[in-house]
Amino acid sequence: MNAVPKTGEAHALPTEERRGVYRAIHERRDVRSQFLPDQIPDQILARLLDAAHHAPSVGFMQPWNFIVIRDRGVRGAVRDAFLQERVRAAALYDEPRRSQFLALKLEGILDAPLNLCVACDPTRDGPHVLGRSAVPETDVYSTCCAVQNFWLAARAEGIGVGWVSILQSVELKRILEIPAPVIAVAYLCVGYVSDFSDTPDLERAGWRTRVSLADLVFEDRWGRQEARVRTAFAGMGGAP
Amino acid sequence: MNAVPKTGEAHALPTEERRGVYRAIHERRDVRSQFLPDQIPDQILARLLDAAHHAPSVGFMQPWNFIVIRDRGVRGAVRDAFLQERVRAAALYDEPRRSQFLALKLEGILDAPLNLCVACDPTRDGPHVLGRSAVPETDVYSTCCAVQNFWLAARAEGIGVGWVSILQSVELKRILEIPAPVIAVAYLCVGYVSDFSDTPDLERAGWRTRVSLADLVFEDRWGRQEARVRTAFAGMGGAP
Repeated sequence: MNAVPKTGEAHALPTEERRGVYRAIHERRDVRSQFLPDQIPDQILARLLDAAHHAPSVGFMQPWNFIVIRDRGVRGAVRDAFLQERVRAAALYDEPRRSQFLALKLEGILDAPLNLCVACDPTRDGPHVLGRSAVPETDVYSTCCAVQNFWLAARAEGIGVGWVSILQSVELKRILEIPAPVIAVAYLCVGYVSDFSDTPDLERAGWRTRVSLADLVFEDRWGRQEARVRTAFAGMGGAP
Repeated sequence: MNAVPKTGEAHALPTEERRGVYRAIHERRDVRSQFLPDQIPDQILARLLDAAHHAPSVGFMQPWNFIVIRDRGVRGAVRDAFLQERVRAAALYDEPRRSQFLALKLEGILDAPLNLCVACDPTRDGPHVLGRSAVPETDVYSTCCAVQNFWLAARAEGIGVGWVSILQSVELKRILEIPAPVIAVAYLCVGYVSDFSDTPDLERAGWRTRVSLADLVFEDRWGRQEARVRTAFAGMGGAP
């Protein structure tokens, strides 16, 4: 005879704690402009990195490393690499999009009190990582989950994070002396902020609007949508 | 004259809400064995998908799609693809690792009431996505952040998630009729659970232990560690 299973909702977090998770998710922002110079206490930084370290990882591989960058010389070099790539990227757009792109503030490398590079070492744990036989990139996928844990924990602490992706990897790796096989997945600016915007910067700037969730959800196979989904998701995540 | 900046901690979430974020991060598990058959109400599923949809994305690209799979025929085909890849993966190990691998329960495809494929459409938003000029894979990075948002929101609701990565993409895409350019990033089993384990399955099974956080953190450049970091992080995330 089997024990009667407990209903799953018994394991839900209490209301206030659950609200915190959704608040962190919805009020998280990609911060570029609102950084304050205040230092982040070591203890809080350790909590954030420990949150990142508790991300899921393929085969419990824990492929990540965290480079905490405070040195202004190093950050200056990264900022130069950003400026170079920004020029290259701007040339891809026609006007008026090009001018609009160049007018956007896209990084807080020197404004934030610290930067963080989250790297992925594909050689961690040897050649045969459990669960990585079919899709080798799952190590990078795990590392991205760690970035998101960091980002949400930071939001909970009132700390802003901005991901700078306008950087050539080869340049970033040279500056940070990252060895060849290691992938520099994310370069983050991290610091307390004067405020968190209500909406993403790119939405407010008129660059792009949020897509309706109902348009993104399929049932059983790609492209199939039934009334059930459209009803449940109508009005979520964007214009219905 | 500038206004005196508010200190950043003013934007921290209240204590209970902040605790919820850390609890979701630390008590999240990769679930394979504890799924209950109870259906997830549409409204809660919509909340979880909306959480995923509020992940950061490069250039506000929102490259993700979500395929909610309840059909048992489709799930059976995915499970067959898993079983095939499992045999292939087992052959990569020598004994006794091979037997240990084959004894692990690694998926809950048919046990969970629903599966979710999170896909990434690299063609979303045209050829020149802001912030994607240097690293085209940032679309997949964004999609992984969406997966982690989903996972944490699910944990807050008392819902377990297990990522099945032992699947050939070409097989999974064939079964789900996913078009050529789209990447099937994650295949998740989703459902209420009888319990969440205290530690990751692979840690409990003796497959691999948690790395010490202090060993993963560098300062300013790859490989540099100073006493400050070791002191702040000692004892976090694994054996010191």
